[in-house]
Amino acid sequence: MAAAATATVQVRPRSDSTHRLVTEAWSTQPPIPVDEYADIYGNPVKRLVMPSGSFVLTYDAVVAVPDEPDADPSGEAQAPADEVPGELLHFTLPSRYCLSDELMATAWELFGQSEPGAARVQAICDWVHDNIKFQYGSSNPLTTALDVFNNRKGVCRDLTHLAVTFCRALNIPARYVFGYLPDLYVPADPAPMDFAAWMEVWLGDRWWTFDPRNNQRRVGRVLIGRGRDALDVAMITTFGPAAFKSMKVWADRAEAA
Amino acid sequence: MAAAATATVQVRPRSDSTHRLVTEAWSTQPPIPVDEYADIYGNPVKRLVMPSGSFVLTYDAVVAVPDEPDADPSGEAQAPADEVPGELLHFTLPSRYCLSDELMATAWELFGQSEPGAARVQAICDWVHDNIKFQYGSSNPLTTALDVFNNRKGVCRDLTHLAVTFCRALNIPARYVFGYLPDLYVPADPAPMDFAAWMEVWLGDRWWTFDPRNNQRRVGRVLIGRGRDALDVAMITTFGPAAFKSMKVWADRAEAA
Amino acid sequence: MAAAATATVQVRPRSDSTHRLVTEAWSTQPPIPVDEYADIYGNPVKRLVMPSGSFVLTYDAVVAVPDEPDADPSGEAQAPADEVPGELLHFTLPSRYCLSDELMATAWELFGQSEPGAARVQAICDWVHDNIKFQYGSSNPLTTALDVFNNRKGVCRDLTHLAVTFCRALNIPARYVFGYLPDLYVPADPAPMDFAAWMEVWLGDRWWTFDPRNNQRRVGRVLIGRGRDALDVAMITTFGPAAFKSMKVWADRAEAA
Amino acid sequence: MAAAATATVQVRPRSDSTHRLVTEAWSTQPPIPVDEYADIYGNPVKRLVMPSGSFVLTYDAVVAVPDEPDADPSGEAQAPADEVPGELLHFTLPSRYCLSDELMATAWELFGQSEPGAARVQAICDWVHDNIKFQYGSSNPLTTALDVFNNRKGVCRDLTHLAVTFCRALNIPARYVFGYLPDLYVPADPAPMDFAAWMEVWLGDRWWTFDPRNNQRRVGRVLIGRGRDALDVAMITTFGPAAFKSMKVWADRAEAA
Repeated sequence: MAAAATATVQVRPRSDSTHRLVTEAWSTQPPIPVDEYADIYGNPVKRLVMPSGSFVLTYDAVVAVPDEPDADPSGEAQAPADEVPGELLHFTLPSRYCLSDELMATAWELFGQSEPGAARVQAICDWVHDNIKFQYGSSNPLTTALDVFNNRKGVCRDLTHLAVTFCRALNIPARYVFGYLPDLYVPADPAPMDFAAWMEVWLGDRWWTFDPRNNQRRVGRVLIGRGRDALDVAMITTFGPAAFKSMKVWADRAEAA
Repeated sequence: MAAAATATVQVRPRSDSTHRLVTEAWSTQPPIPVDEYADIYGNPVKRLVMPSGSFVLTYDAVVAVPDEPDADPSGEAQAPADEVPGELLHFTLPSRYCLSDELMATAWELFGQSEPGAARVQAICDWVHDNIKFQYGSSNPLTTALDVFNNRKGVCRDLTHLAVTFCRALNIPARYVFGYLPDLYVPADPAPMDFAAWMEVWLGDRWWTFDPRNNQRRVGRVLIGRGRDALDVAMITTFGPAAFKSMKVWADRAEAA
Repeated sequence: MAAAATATVQVRPRSDSTHRLVTEAWSTQPPIPVDEYADIYGNPVKRLVMPSGSFVLTYDAVVAVPDEPDADPSGEAQAPADEVPGELLHFTLPSRYCLSDELMATAWELFGQSEPGAARVQAICDWVHDNIKFQYGSSNPLTTALDVFNNRKGVCRDLTHLAVTFCRALNIPARYVFGYLPDLYVPADPAPMDFAAWMEVWLGDRWWTFDPRNNQRRVGRVLIGRGRDALDVAMITTFGPAAFKSMKVWADRAEAA
Repeated sequence: MAAAATATVQVRPRSDSTHRLVTEAWSTQPPIPVDEYADIYGNPVKRLVMPSGSFVLTYDAVVAVPDEPDADPSGEAQAPADEVPGELLHFTLPSRYCLSDELMATAWELFGQSEPGAARVQAICDWVHDNIKFQYGSSNPLTTALDVFNNRKGVCRDLTHLAVTFCRALNIPARYVFGYLPDLYVPADPAPMDFAAWMEVWLGDRWWTFDPRNNQRRVGRVLIGRGRDALDVAMITTFGPAAFKSMKVWADRAEAA
């Protein structure tokens, strides 16, 4: 790139999800010092000043995941507002992309008849999965859940935003997460390999994984970041004139030893 | 009110600002148990289930404040993105009401020629103070900083949102705060006494107080809550059918013993 | 007192135990500003500079407690070292007063034959309750659990230290807690009303209350502070020449409205 | 080793000291999943269940350190008890190995005439460096600062414990730290390369590095862990029957690119 620029990078998996790190290696070319911190959501972030000229960043990890797919939330009840842990209540509020205040009436209209709890969240995922067309290039950094609802298309980020928004409009705590999802990879898919976004929803007394894009319980999620919406969990954010030439993401399945 | 409803209340001053608590007393009528927690920003929150029927909540405190007005930030430089403490970087991002992405070009156009640092933030406050008319009832819970910019009117919440938004658009960390501001009270003012909103901006290596509504350094701020925008620091939030009959806020000056 | 002295005070109940605050009032005579913070264990602490001369500090609160006694841990298993939440593992280590390294062999000798889990912790409480004589004035600020074991007497602080020590020697996370215990008050008891100390022990996947001094599940605990041992949770700590004239602690039972 | 055993490992440098990570790589042979968490002091810890049989753990990192030696604290004043940040006050209390209560009178006798502040802490380091003989094998896991004072010998862990103890006895916040100190390595030294221990002391409004063992300001410290004393920052702690065959620590100086 043309000149030095500060960047923040989120690639290291969080340590409080279902996977476990086995090996990892981080390096850059040229080698430069990295500042590390946890953001307000506890996500591990690396910050670096990328030098001018070509710059390559490499992160390799082997991660162990459970053999079982995402836990089954069937039958879990919605937690009343006085029982949700206080420090999580902000996950019922609107955020930059998740305009649950604007979509409040719509949410009640579409899902108000469903049974509160896991069934209602599943109804939301079904609706989003069935009504929002997955289409690369259909959204941009200003696209909100309201836009997605109106345009009826988006990428996994957008489908997740809309489902999160409906949950919050119905007072169900919901957070946006992103990470690696290995078996996402389909050889015939012309699109480049990428990170995946899904959501976590508070039911009963814990968080549960829902994935409006795939709308199925999956094996192999490796969670990198959590936040209110995609703003909080960007894989890379640059402050300055960086040009992003290419990114390759591998998330292959390795057989257990 | 008609039926029980859960509410979260922020009235206790934060313990990490310039004031110091001297006495305090909390009670409700009828007396009910309260759940307490710190939210994601460290704000002290009380949560309670308000019974049906009449319900009164009382919080009295005597607070000591410095004799000096807000510290003078003149000459402070803008911190580069690699020197802002990492866990504060999210205060450069857009939020629900502070659409710094939408107002990015406007911010650079209006303030890009000013000297980076305290002078630039002061230029923002001057502009907001001079161009946005203070008018009760001119905004609602969906009003964003973009709306305020377009409509050119608002209350202290709105003026603060707009100033916060301009700061973030220029990569200056800014957070929304609210609290008591005793000498705000003007006998001739027909409006009821209320809480006040202002902002804190990161310059050099610390936070500084700026107040776009009053646009002057003041004595006597008692800070209750901090957050990305007004969503995070509501004095009272209800989950359910509560009807809010009346609120009286006193913030009188007591002479030192 | 003769000259100004800094003091830290722990009287406010923690907000994450089983009780709930209903009303509270704090004041001092003369009125002085108070600094508040959470210590490393999350205990709420007030710090103040006591003026020379007479100084009175008042804290009144009404607190709601569950009707039920402490939860029954019967049958809970000991958590293996790889399942205890990592941030709690330090509660298996020795501390200033709880010399679990010195008493390791003794602990295994006394309790190694008991069934791991709740039964083993109960065996510890039984042994301490039956073998350590409760006697006011039998210990001082340098008295460790090893001294208590050797001298076979102590106050509730000492009995708790010894029980905590045995737990840790057996790799069971244990923490020292102190608080109000209203029905502790016995009219015929010549000793002044005081705070009480007991412990919390990690079994299965949560903390459980054990009380080696009373050795029974009780109603009405109001927990103020938690820590490794009594060092971490002093009701009042002075830095300087304060003379402590008198303290009156009331913890009376109020009937529910 | 003979059977599986849980171990906690602290080898990753903390991210909030003066060094910056450039590259790092973690792996084990055989490869096994690792649990990661931050302990109560914010130290990054890895926890793993070591399988029976041979087990090798490898951590390689390149770290950038400032060219300058430890900052010079000369002239810094001792912070009064009401100005030390509240959450750090526990670093003035005794701990398992740092019996500042037992050595209170000694500390005042030896250092009470020195000028409070940096000069007093330096007097402590001088005394410890001059009076405690550095001798491998002179202490064991039960050795306290009181023992070190009486025996007049120890390793860097023990010298640090004694200096920390004297500081706390004089109301100066002090914490124990350990890490890599590359230029510690002296080819003629028959002892194996090892980690080093030193301390941080709160003077004025920040922490300062003091090193009673070397008693000089040095270049190249890479801080791994902080705590009350050596108990909190063990490089490896095992829960079970592990036999520790060998450890090789390299901390070589690499020239900047």
